[in-house]
Amino acid sequence: MLRTNPERLWNTIVHLARFGRTAKGEVGRAALSAADGQARDCFVAWCEDAGLAVRCDRIGNIFARRAGTDPAAAPVLTGSHLDTQPLGGKFDGIYGVLAGLEVLRSVNDAGLVTRAPLEVVVWTDEEGWRFSPGMSGSSVFCGSMELARGLAAVDDRGVTVAQALERIGYAGEHDPGDFAIDSFFEAHIEQGPVLESENLPVGIVPGAQGQRCFEVLVSGVEGHAGTLPMELRRDALLGAARMVDQINAVAFEFQPHPVITIGRLDVRPNSRNTIPGSCRFSIDARHPDDQVLAAVDARIREVCGTVAEHTDVEVEVALESRRTTVHFDPSRLAIMRQAAARLGIPHRDIFSGAGHDACNLAAVTPTAMLFVPCEKGISHNELESARREDLAAGCDVLLHAMLARAGTVET
Amino acid sequence: MLRTNPERLWNTIVHLARFGRTAKGEVGRAALSAADGQARDCFVAWCEDAGLAVRCDRIGNIFARRAGTDPAAAPVLTGSHLDTQPLGGKFDGIYGVLAGLEVLRSVNDAGLVTRAPLEVVVWTDEEGWRFSPGMSGSSVFCGSMELARGLAAVDDRGVTVAQALERIGYAGEHDPGDFAIDSFFEAHIEQGPVLESENLPVGIVPGAQGQRCFEVLVSGVEGHAGTLPMELRRDALLGAARMVDQINAVAFEFQPHPVITIGRLDVRPNSRNTIPGSCRFSIDARHPDDQVLAAVDARIREVCGTVAEHTDVEVEVALESRRTTVHFDPSRLAIMRQAAARLGIPHRDIFSGAGHDACNLAAVTPTAMLFVPCEKGISHNELESARREDLAAGCDVLLHAMLARAGTVET
Repeated sequence: MLRTNPERLWNTIVHLARFGRTAKGEVGRAALSAADGQARDCFVAWCEDAGLAVRCDRIGNIFARRAGTDPAAAPVLTGSHLDTQPLGGKFDGIYGVLAGLEVLRSVNDAGLVTRAPLEVVVWTDEEGWRFSPGMSGSSVFCGSMELARGLAAVDDRGVTVAQALERIGYAGEHDPGDFAIDSFFEAHIEQGPVLESENLPVGIVPGAQGQRCFEVLVSGVEGHAGTLPMELRRDALLGAARMVDQINAVAFEFQPHPVITIGRLDVRPNSRNTIPGSCRFSIDARHPDDQVLAAVDARIREVCGTVAEHTDVEVEVALESRRTTVHFDPSRLAIMRQAAARLGIPHRDIFSGAGHDACNLAAVTPTAMLFVPCEKGISHNELESARREDLAAGCDVLLHAMLARAGTVET
Repeated sequence: MLRTNPERLWNTIVHLARFGRTAKGEVGRAALSAADGQARDCFVAWCEDAGLAVRCDRIGNIFARRAGTDPAAAPVLTGSHLDTQPLGGKFDGIYGVLAGLEVLRSVNDAGLVTRAPLEVVVWTDEEGWRFSPGMSGSSVFCGSMELARGLAAVDDRGVTVAQALERIGYAGEHDPGDFAIDSFFEAHIEQGPVLESENLPVGIVPGAQGQRCFEVLVSGVEGHAGTLPMELRRDALLGAARMVDQINAVAFEFQPHPVITIGRLDVRPNSRNTIPGSCRFSIDARHPDDQVLAAVDARIREVCGTVAEHTDVEVEVALESRRTTVHFDPSRLAIMRQAAARLGIPHRDIFSGAGHDACNLAAVTPTAMLFVPCEKGISHNELESARREDLAAGCDVLLHAMLARAGTVET
């Protein structure tokens, strides 16, 4: 069976990591920065060398197409993003773009002719830390964000997306989303430890978890650490601490477990010899099943209320944001599983814990994702790492899934 | 029986609150500030009007003496401090000074002659927030701090205690601690809720609790809130939260309960979608019995270790500071209890949770303290309040305790 070229894929990934290099030799490439412009230029040059037709839309998404024989056929699209976290690695997003390029190069090398076009895309600003919110390129393309809003987003120096696109030469002429797509496939590192721990090179991603974020305010009464007897205290931190423990325990009441994280907690007045008067913390709860997530939501409120009663504090639990579960297309997932099976690549299904551009695409075209393992599950970090054989395995699955949809033509 | 004048006591307290008034009409009088100088001047004028002999030592402590008949007799001393917290009330410290003045005025009014002198003192800088550490006036007087160190302490504008004393005219000539003292009695607001809740106007203070302060560092591993399964997490905040809960529970294992406070807790990186990698918190534990406090110390370390094991995090518990229990003099405490009993004033014994100048004096002379209730136990706060009848009751006990030591002489 046809395989992609692992060395070439690896070398392109390493090459692109030179744009926006951090002090530690990894990558910090802000969306639409000069470094992002250089990375885009490099990608476009590679595409042109591969004979692909490159075009850019008005929100800066770059499309590189390898034509098919059927002029009426919609392209089979793959890709991801080239921007990174401030202290990021060289795989998050980039792998999905360069795996797509490697697929098209491999199809070239094999001299294959496809019925439908094969196309690779760079979505603008997935990470969303220079401009906000993230995933603006795919959001505008899919119609969930207006173009004007995407272009008007401002960084902390007052530069708009529109200005930043002009500066690096990626303010394209095409209207975003002006063409039909047969399918969207996105390859990505897992950003979690599951595949590595199970020694699997590929995960097939049936969807992305729903998420509910809460803000909790616990109110007690400040007091003197030396003089207020224990039984008269209304200690906001004691209440919050028990809530943290019991909210964590809620995760284990459900199968499979949701992930529930209390990542931020602030104490007032936060002074050694004063009993805390108030405490504020965040809750981030995610699960693939929206109904389970609703039940988790109810249980979180229940345990907070019970703890507040027992510790004689007040509590307010406010839902801050909510994202429903995204389910990818069963037929496209089946194609990926078949490709992996035919290639003899061990794999399992694994839900995405994070959001990806594919979550936007799922609303407009049949979509599927695949994951490859990353070392210790670390991402959004300069320690991010992945093995070239896993990257190659994911790329091979992507190749055969795309070919299955595009159809090869005997010449 | 002789009583002090409740109206006069109340009016002097209200009058002194004009120096260093806060926006809310309460008191923020930094040690040795211009406002402190004005309050001292006012106090000295009152003392001179009462015929007292005023002198000042080199650390700025002010002594106002009413002579006795026996030239060899050491004075019976009372007093406290006139400086306040930045946003403080008009009773903390001030009550102890002005109750002393009221005692001497009442003795004057009654035309009593005492064998030993009666004396009231203003100790310099009890609060310790402008200069550090606090209680420097009584520390230097009692020899636990060298005079040179006390004078060299600097505020955040670079002004030394020596310079500040010069500016307000209270750099005295006397060497601190150059005379013997028969007894020291200090009257103070409780700064806790016990007396108020039991409806008692006076507490007799057998001592001040010992204190151990700890700094705890809990170390886990950062991770992505969306992708790291619950069972693989090493969540520093989960570990810290359980420790907070269980350290609190340790207090209830001992009778009487120690007070144990976790007042400060900081999470790293403290971001909504990152599992906390580390967590640092303070513990302040106090108890009247040093042996109990040692047992509390051991139990705190034990529960932290056990929680760390169960939650797969690391923990370091470091003792930051330690103060042993101060026990006041049994005979002077007995005199106070007898005075209260003879006056028909309901009272109980109550340990001090906070440190006071009397804790220093206890090392050099037989010492005792009394407390009067303050509203809701609130102090170090502009909401600090006390009832004039309670202030008067404490002042009456102080009067008869001082007379019992000084001895009245028939004329």
